[in-house]
Amino acid sequence: MINKNKIPVGILGATGSVGQKFIELLQDHPWFKITALGASERSAGKLYKHASNWFQQRPIPARIANMVVSECKPDLPCRIVFSGLDASVAGPIEEAFAEAGYIVISNAKNHRMTDNVPLLVPDINPDHLDLIKFQKYKGKIVTNPNCSTTGLVMALKPLQDVYGIEKVSVVTMQALSGAGYPGISSLDIIDNMIPYIGGEEEKMQIETLKILGKVHDEKIDFADLTISAQCNRVLVMNGHMEAVSVKLKQPAKKDDMIKVWKTYRSEPQELGLPFAPDPAIYYFEDPRFPQPRLHRDLGKGMAVSIGRLRDCSVLDYKFTVLSHNTVRGAAGGAILNAELLIKKGYYEE
Amino acid sequence: MINKNKIPVGILGATGSVGQKFIELLQDHPWFKITALGASERSAGKLYKHASNWFQQRPIPARIANMVVSECKPDLPCRIVFSGLDASVAGPIEEAFAEAGYIVISNAKNHRMTDNVPLLVPDINPDHLDLIKFQKYKGKIVTNPNCSTTGLVMALKPLQDVYGIEKVSVVTMQALSGAGYPGISSLDIIDNMIPYIGGEEEKMQIETLKILGKVHDEKIDFADLTISAQCNRVLVMNGHMEAVSVKLKQPAKKDDMIKVWKTYRSEPQELGLPFAPDPAIYYFEDPRFPQPRLHRDLGKGMAVSIGRLRDCSVLDYKFTVLSHNTVRGAAGGAILNAELLIKKGYYEE
Amino acid sequence: MINKNKIPVGILGATGSVGQKFIELLQDHPWFKITALGASERSAGKLYKHASNWFQQRPIPARIANMVVSECKPDLPCRIVFSGLDASVAGPIEEAFAEAGYIVISNAKNHRMTDNVPLLVPDINPDHLDLIKFQKYKGKIVTNPNCSTTGLVMALKPLQDVYGIEKVSVVTMQALSGAGYPGISSLDIIDNMIPYIGGEEEKMQIETLKILGKVHDEKIDFADLTISAQCNRVLVMNGHMEAVSVKLKQPAKKDDMIKVWKTYRSEPQELGLPFAPDPAIYYFEDPRFPQPRLHRDLGKGMAVSIGRLRDCSVLDYKFTVLSHNTVRGAAGGAILNAELLIKKGYYEE
Amino acid sequence: MINKNKIPVGILGATGSVGQKFIELLQDHPWFKITALGASERSAGKLYKHASNWFQQRPIPARIANMVVSECKPDLPCRIVFSGLDASVAGPIEEAFAEAGYIVISNAKNHRMTDNVPLLVPDINPDHLDLIKFQKYKGKIVTNPNCSTTGLVMALKPLQDVYGIEKVSVVTMQALSGAGYPGISSLDIIDNMIPYIGGEEEKMQIETLKILGKVHDEKIDFADLTISAQCNRVLVMNGHMEAVSVKLKQPAKKDDMIKVWKTYRSEPQELGLPFAPDPAIYYFEDPRFPQPRLHRDLGKGMAVSIGRLRDCSVLDYKFTVLSHNTVRGAAGGAILNAELLIKKGYYEE
Repeated sequence: MINKNKIPVGILGATGSVGQKFIELLQDHPWFKITALGASERSAGKLYKHASNWFQQRPIPARIANMVVSECKPDLPCRIVFSGLDASVAGPIEEAFAEAGYIVISNAKNHRMTDNVPLLVPDINPDHLDLIKFQKYKGKIVTNPNCSTTGLVMALKPLQDVYGIEKVSVVTMQALSGAGYPGISSLDIIDNMIPYIGGEEEKMQIETLKILGKVHDEKIDFADLTISAQCNRVLVMNGHMEAVSVKLKQPAKKDDMIKVWKTYRSEPQELGLPFAPDPAIYYFEDPRFPQPRLHRDLGKGMAVSIGRLRDCSVLDYKFTVLSHNTVRGAAGGAILNAELLIKKGYYEE
Repeated sequence: MINKNKIPVGILGATGSVGQKFIELLQDHPWFKITALGASERSAGKLYKHASNWFQQRPIPARIANMVVSECKPDLPCRIVFSGLDASVAGPIEEAFAEAGYIVISNAKNHRMTDNVPLLVPDINPDHLDLIKFQKYKGKIVTNPNCSTTGLVMALKPLQDVYGIEKVSVVTMQALSGAGYPGISSLDIIDNMIPYIGGEEEKMQIETLKILGKVHDEKIDFADLTISAQCNRVLVMNGHMEAVSVKLKQPAKKDDMIKVWKTYRSEPQELGLPFAPDPAIYYFEDPRFPQPRLHRDLGKGMAVSIGRLRDCSVLDYKFTVLSHNTVRGAAGGAILNAELLIKKGYYEE
Repeated sequence: MINKNKIPVGILGATGSVGQKFIELLQDHPWFKITALGASERSAGKLYKHASNWFQQRPIPARIANMVVSECKPDLPCRIVFSGLDASVAGPIEEAFAEAGYIVISNAKNHRMTDNVPLLVPDINPDHLDLIKFQKYKGKIVTNPNCSTTGLVMALKPLQDVYGIEKVSVVTMQALSGAGYPGISSLDIIDNMIPYIGGEEEKMQIETLKILGKVHDEKIDFADLTISAQCNRVLVMNGHMEAVSVKLKQPAKKDDMIKVWKTYRSEPQELGLPFAPDPAIYYFEDPRFPQPRLHRDLGKGMAVSIGRLRDCSVLDYKFTVLSHNTVRGAAGGAILNAELLIKKGYYEE
Repeated sequence: MINKNKIPVGILGATGSVGQKFIELLQDHPWFKITALGASERSAGKLYKHASNWFQQRPIPARIANMVVSECKPDLPCRIVFSGLDASVAGPIEEAFAEAGYIVISNAKNHRMTDNVPLLVPDINPDHLDLIKFQKYKGKIVTNPNCSTTGLVMALKPLQDVYGIEKVSVVTMQALSGAGYPGISSLDIIDNMIPYIGGEEEKMQIETLKILGKVHDEKIDFADLTISAQCNRVLVMNGHMEAVSVKLKQPAKKDDMIKVWKTYRSEPQELGLPFAPDPAIYYFEDPRFPQPRLHRDLGKGMAVSIGRLRDCSVLDYKFTVLSHNTVRGAAGGAILNAELLIKKGYYEE
């Protein structure tokens, strides 16, 4: 299936923050080759290097720099598109592509909660992908969750499988890159933190229920658990930290829980998907860990780090979770979604 | 009682981080005048300006700069001492002073949990001061809580009075100055945060129970509530933020809770103590607030700020609390303790 | 002249970054009372608290919060206006006010280099104020220099008076607030610095020559010295640092130079203007000083701090200068300009 | 020469900041294999993972983690040692190793200015290596310069070769990692910068003269140029920035200077040494560049970045230089020294 010819893919919202990350992460991808860059009317017709205000660590890949940017219309020379579009425009554009037969791998929030659209984290709910059978588009739409949701569900799912989860209380300390570019003004965050991220808590709560739910007929039965989130912004570049408390349905021992995390494997690992981290989860015995700058890049930014498991007197247990918000929590997660979809035969050349 | 002659006071641990803050805050105090500076043997005999590595915002008060530092022995020319001693030495030194008849107003943790030592936040539990009657020292010891505890109990007490509190879950995002000087290396915190502060969670939990407890015979009956704390360090200079969830014993409406906070007054406000903030608590309607840099200095650093009261699906309500850790949570809190003690007649000239 | 009735003043660009600083600094001013707030058409008609995104440390002064914002048209109820307008609009608006008879105290760059407009730092070139006699407006325009220029000329003028200056090489490390709000994205400056500030080097160079020049007929003969500036942005909130090297015309001894700085007094100090710092210049013997966070607020942000005077093998001497960029270098400097103008009799009631 | 068997090397000061960087950078080195870890008496006998407070981004290489630490005595199982020793102890220890026949590749300052010890930057002065012939040790000592010197000489040497250099004025903005660990307290640098680094300016000045000098008999004739340095610390993790002005001996055009930099190649590039960056120097046309976070890792941290070449009215030209202080400016530079030494035949198996 994945033969010598790479699969052509397009990027929607290619000049934006997530679009740039797609380009950066896809540049050496063994399966995919970027053949189209979609952006706003204003950018269309320009060379990518002129249209984008590139601010990634490494320079624009040379081949991409000199590609001409197109408008986001469903006439791009590819059949899979990664969407890093802003939520303010993603809805109708993604639908237009899906209706025209494209497979849309979206990082935008617009279709996440639609019944027959998978809200997919391949290590967690790969079976949700099957929902796309019920989509009536000629193409398909697959979404990945909000960056703060991803780390949380990666930590919860192994526990849910073994013990069941009744309640979750989570407080996040999120990185600046999660707010896009230019995002947070330096004047607002130096010697400071911000206890509010608009809409984030609601997204984290509802998305977790869908991801941890079960396929039932043509939609997801939401997980039967209670969750409460409090979201904060701190002066960190990349890497969302989360202080989590859980109440389990079955009794658990801490040593066993740690083992459950460390040995957790799912379809991406079994299938050997290129972006699958292996191990998927790191657990640290050192109580000072994980820390964003030290551990966000584990598994090339796709692994999740956990530490400080200890008793909680209010619920049962508490612990700390870290995941890379722009890799695992955004562009990298979407790429893993595309890999799963292809490996499962939903893309035919 | 407070007449034209100010009350002479000494500072134990005068060269350290908390000691410096005592000096800074006391320099214009209407009741107190620093007449003795106690420090280690190594510093004794030197001028304060030579003995201390002063790193406060404002310069050393001129009169203090040229005072000669003494050893921490109970022969200082005063009868009240403020102790900013490190916990590693505070225990026996503070006891020696108390036995010699000094009133010791301590910021150290060593005697906080002793039965007949008040763990005092004058706005919260002024009646606990009476415990000192049961101390068998010739003098007295009064303590204030850990910096992260203070903000929390200031937010909880008004709710406890009206509704009763059953459960508390708190996640802190604490400022760097709480770790003393030099404290956290810049290399450990730039583009980073640390999900661990040794011993802090335990202190926060147990101290809250004592402060919110009731005097019973010669000690405190701890508050009948469950509390769980998770403590984190973030790149902020001053001001501890706390994301709090509570379960109340009685039903409450959010508007009423806000009113309860905004109108909370206690003995320091009634007595007009110099360091009493009035109002004691600020509540912000803007969901982005409070923030450390913007609001830590309210009430000259002695007021507590609360915001974002909203429903919590796991407990009942959640909200954000901010307090200045080196003022309200340390030196300023201790000074307020001394003021209450004096106003209540425990110091006779 | 300054009697019981304060002088009514207006703020142009009242909702912007500099406008907010004007409001903050003027709220307790002994001579001035804000009676008009001018802003864009979009803001006009709203209450100030609704029109502005206030982000200063202290809350909006209550009286100002409820004032109605006007358009920036010359029908405001005052005769002096402080202009914090953006350079993109300041030119014609300020001229319209001047022509209508207002005294315009401008922080914008637009008229700084106009021959008969004083580029005024009252401690340095108070005699330049006389240029306004040659303006043909019914009113007047007075400007203050760019924030990075002010600190430099404050350090140079005392040396110029005594020794003469031949060459100046300066490298700045400038604070984030100098870029306005939202200004620099947090993503661009965390774990980073930026070696470029558009137009800043040119402004610093040419403005220094005008300020240190002499009134000759109806304009300024620029100072006869060579200057080269390199401007950088660093992760500091407030306070511009400058590493300066100078070549003097006369031989000098370091001890004498320090004395010259420490004893420097000029008209604002002699006249006792409310915003005049006294001393105007602090010199630090400790080689680690001055530092932005520790010393920017000296003299209520109006004093300039110097340290580390030492030999320079390329020019003659090198030293470090610090000044508060939004106080001394912007709104505070403009207020001092207005004070000088009034004290010199250019405002008649 | 470099055959299938890697050359055994030891690390002196293996637990320290520079020692850790040596371990990190050497772990995949094609020529070298770490066979000995020397540290203080206190650490000797322990496993490295227990003896060191490892704080690098990636975990301790597994093989190293379980090696037993030795004392720094000349009985280690290797003949080349990399010294990351602190200057307070490096002097006699390095000499003892040299006398015992070891080749000492030192990052410490102790022997840098000794006549017959090369102060080596292989891209700049590879011929200085020959000085070791005149050392009377049974072994040899080779040093690399201070981290702030390296970037500067990399930028100056290409200009010196073509145009000659008469004067240099440099102001540095240096990263925190240059101060070692724990180094600068977070409390000293948040919302701040420090205009002083003890001894740094003197080192930068004198080391530059030696490195740019010529071998003459058994020592170096220092370069005939005047240099003045001002050193500052800013809130950046890695990457020293330098604002440089130069006066050249011959006329130059900016376009040519840029070409001279971009095409600069020296022995490390010709010899294809593993740690040689190629290109050695990047020049950026974008005036906002280079920036520490974006460009410090170019050439795996061994390349130097330059930007903003423009006229200087005081000297001739000014520009900005960036180099990675712990890679190019410390451990990586020392490794390149060892590579050159081996390639030139000074190590015989």
